Amino acid sequence: MTDSSPNRPVIILVEPQLAENIGMTARAMGNFGLDALRIVNPKGGWPMKGVRETASSATHVLDGTTVFPTVPEALADLHYVLATTARERGQMKRVFGPDEGMAEAAGRLAAGEKVGILFGRERVGLSNDEVSLADAIVTFPVDPDHASLNLAQSVLLMGYEWRRAAGRAVLPFAGAMRSGPAPREALISLFESLESDLDAAGYYPPAKRDGMIRNMRDMFHRMAMTEQDVRTFRGALRALARRPPEE
Amino acid sequence: MTDSSPNRPVIILVEPQLAENIGMTARAMGNFGLDALRIVNPKGGWPMKGVRETASSATHVLDGTTVFPTVPEALADLHYVLATTARERGQMKRVFGPDEGMAEAAGRLAAGEKVGILFGRERVGLSNDEVSLADAIVTFPVDPDHASLNLAQSVLLMGYEWRRAAGRAVLPFAGAMRSGPAPREALISLFESLESDLDAAGYYPPAKRDGMIRNMRDMFHRMAMTEQDVRTFRGALRALARRPPEE
Repeated sequence: MTDSSPNRPVIILVEPQLAENIGMTARAMGNFGLDALRIVNPKGGWPMKGVRETASSATHVLDGTTVFPTVPEALADLHYVLATTARERGQMKRVFGPDEGMAEAAGRLAAGEKVGILFGRERVGLSNDEVSLADAIVTFPVDPDHASLNLAQSVLLMGYEWRRAAGRAVLPFAGAMRSGPAPREALISLFESLESDLDAAGYYPPAKRDGMIRNMRDMFHRMAMTEQDVRTFRGALRALARRPPEE
Repeated sequence: MTDSSPNRPVIILVEPQLAENIGMTARAMGNFGLDALRIVNPKGGWPMKGVRETASSATHVLDGTTVFPTVPEALADLHYVLATTARERGQMKRVFGPDEGMAEAAGRLAAGEKVGILFGRERVGLSNDEVSLADAIVTFPVDPDHASLNLAQSVLLMGYEWRRAAGRAVLPFAGAMRSGPAPREALISLFESLESDLDAAGYYPPAKRDGMIRNMRDMFHRMAMTEQDVRTFRGALRALARRPPEE
């Protein structure tokens, strides 16, 4: 079995009906770095018309998809299986949210086990017998009054949580400060310039001056100014000081 | 402004084009208990044909949707705003993943602040000016080679993470053991019955007997048997013992 990429869970769809759900599943997998898709007994056979169009750039997932006639065959080589269900099944199984479930999966994948996640049919989900082939259940923490997630959304959430659990939730970019935080000396110098200009403008009522100065300095502290910010602000102050007084 | 329900973030869509994206957004909001939707300058006006059909049971979100001509007006009453972007914007802003961003938002909501999350146009996202109206950026930890999430999926992930951050990620059901863990006495009694039956069946090669017994006991320990499990197993053993020997 070549699709069980080391350290990544396999996504298994049981008798999916709609081509767009399969395409959107592939796309959701691609979003979070999953590429192993197995389909059990797809309605209408495989390849299925309409799947590629909804897979966006994730056609590599479709190209590697393997199809099985039954669930036991699709699970045969796996060591740990999670079954996603919306309804309680009366089985004495561990029930995880996506975060706990994928943390469990990530640990086993890291130990070299092959892990699969079962997703059921659009309308009726998984049968109780199919659930009994899994080690544990994953269910989603949805509002019970508005609980219906579509297939691709369920796959998306599990993919997202896998990426987090596996420590791969790297953001494509980070916030970058263009220059480092300003040294205190620059800040103090700015305070003194600003306060001197405001004094000259008669801004502070004498009884309130000290309190207002402290409050304004606090605002600047909360700004967490960089050296560039201080330079920018000082330039603005100088421009204001040079401007002819308003009539 | 009546839509800023206490303690829940407002979802703001900027110039969304497709009715189904708005409907699917409302549905994703409903899944995770969000109900405050604001739309800035929807293409083709509001109400928009085709939205209700894709909203599933979340029509309450659509009924409460408010529409604004500009982004500043949509943000006016909010105290903290996150902007979702896929691309780096060259602004000196904090960049969060969905989990950090919603943890930040949950803290502020708990403190009584109104929080909003901005989502951009399907094709071009948010403008840099619109991003500059936000406190921080949220971006998704997607695989850079397959980075495109649709609008409703972005809303879904933020809704999921809000629910987790706000401590509301309650699963609709939990795993339930029908009876408590078996007391050691019951386990030991089971071991003795099983080992006695296997001895009588000549199962153990003498040189390996002790090791095999220990290994099998270990399997049963890993089963974490309940009292019911022990009873079930003992009943199966008795049935096997009563069965006539095979020819």
